[in-house]
Amino acid sequence: MSEELLGGLDPAIVRRTLLDAADVAAAITLPRFRQGIAVDNKWTKGFDPVTEADREAERAIRELIAGRFPDHSLVGEEWDPKETGSRFAWIIDPIDGTRAFITGVPVWGTLIGLTVDGRAVAGLMAQPFTGEVYLSLPGEAHYHRGTERQELRTSTVTGLAKAKLTTTSPEMFVGAGLSAQWAAISGGALTVRYGLDCYGYCLLAAGHIDLVVEASLKDVDITPLIPIITNAGGVVTTWDGGPAEQGGNCVAAATPELHAAALKILQGA
Amino acid sequence: MSEELLGGLDPAIVRRTLLDAADVAAAITLPRFRQGIAVDNKWTKGFDPVTEADREAERAIRELIAGRFPDHSLVGEEWDPKETGSRFAWIIDPIDGTRAFITGVPVWGTLIGLTVDGRAVAGLMAQPFTGEVYLSLPGEAHYHRGTERQELRTSTVTGLAKAKLTTTSPEMFVGAGLSAQWAAISGGALTVRYGLDCYGYCLLAAGHIDLVVEASLKDVDITPLIPIITNAGGVVTTWDGGPAEQGGNCVAAATPELHAAALKILQGA
Repeated sequence: MSEELLGGLDPAIVRRTLLDAADVAAAITLPRFRQGIAVDNKWTKGFDPVTEADREAERAIRELIAGRFPDHSLVGEEWDPKETGSRFAWIIDPIDGTRAFITGVPVWGTLIGLTVDGRAVAGLMAQPFTGEVYLSLPGEAHYHRGTERQELRTSTVTGLAKAKLTTTSPEMFVGAGLSAQWAAISGGALTVRYGLDCYGYCLLAAGHIDLVVEASLKDVDITPLIPIITNAGGVVTTWDGGPAEQGGNCVAAATPELHAAALKILQGA
Repeated sequence: MSEELLGGLDPAIVRRTLLDAADVAAAITLPRFRQGIAVDNKWTKGFDPVTEADREAERAIRELIAGRFPDHSLVGEEWDPKETGSRFAWIIDPIDGTRAFITGVPVWGTLIGLTVDGRAVAGLMAQPFTGEVYLSLPGEAHYHRGTERQELRTSTVTGLAKAKLTTTSPEMFVGAGLSAQWAAISGGALTVRYGLDCYGYCLLAAGHIDLVVEASLKDVDITPLIPIITNAGGVVTTWDGGPAEQGGNCVAAATPELHAAALKILQGA
């Protein structure tokens, strides 16, 4: 079952590759965290910090994966994709949450995912400062930190009024012309948290947050998280209910009922 | 100098008391973090979670301080103040950032401060999950985590356009009728982060964030942080430039220049 979903790859080797890739990334990112590093501006308009850590960590992750799977495609945040025509593609965001990174907040993460025929089947989020790792392969999703290990399981919340909601920033919706949808869903939730990027989805998988609503995501922002969410019992799609592997406007919920309630509001507002 | 500002108290004993009080609090808060604890609603309207951890941690902190300084006043978030008429008052917020706590985000903190004649002279913020401690006494402000220790020093940013800004939530300003002020200052900053509570002020003291703007703070939310900010080189006042020890609308800045620029906008918008 597990190997079938992985397109015949050995789950143990996929797991090891995810963990090793996270380690080589951490060796590059963590020494630069809170060090007053140089911040480039990717765009002349606005503020999209891309650090040396981001670029170098992606390079190291790609080298590690390419060494083990030379025929697989590689898609990353910082460098051009390597398209091989393979069924397998590794999706990499070396530092998801660059604003958290440059402001010293340990809620950024290294995201690495594996897709088979475009479907996300394995993924990892690692936060090196806190030492947290969220990892999923077919049929499993777990968290570990040092010697602590826990299975991931979403909450049982089914209604918006009891849902703890998060999004990276309310400005995300203003920019996308989606303020009404955001107002409708945030106004109905129990509480709203901002500023979590990938960390919010992992806390959803762990049962601490019930709903994540975001707009204009890139594929690398969400694809590695899809297995973590779904194998913990959650549901993640675009706002129109389609697969989230291409990014866009995405919603993740702890339960199918909460997901349906959120879609109704996001589509109807 | 140090003892004079502390009203004659021994700095070593004040330091030890702050650290010991943080330890007894951590023994209560940390085992309850991410455990799906019961959440009470303090108010019937809205959502103001107060956990068992919050109440029990404050009780433990107060007992520890009262054992060492039986004649000092105690002011906390969760229980009635103990007013002794002393020059000395300990200001306690056992879990600042209860929303972060209940959503599993390790940016809440235990705040303990000391005032002499109403002036904040020593303070501590401890984040037990990450193991971070930010501590200040007269003439010193430092950070430690395990064996790592660093002096705290704010950034050199003087202009709003280069400032990394944080606030706990944009809704904080809507509720207080201060949306125009928030729009003016957030629109002029380099970037904005949400959701940090006490952690944002500590990152400002450490040079990673340049400006914190908040509305409607309680005294316990800000007083323990004042020494940490000011002894790291920063400035913290109310929006009208007065002392922040009573809470209210507060602004903390990395430099006097940035503070003046922020006050101008907050008062003029």
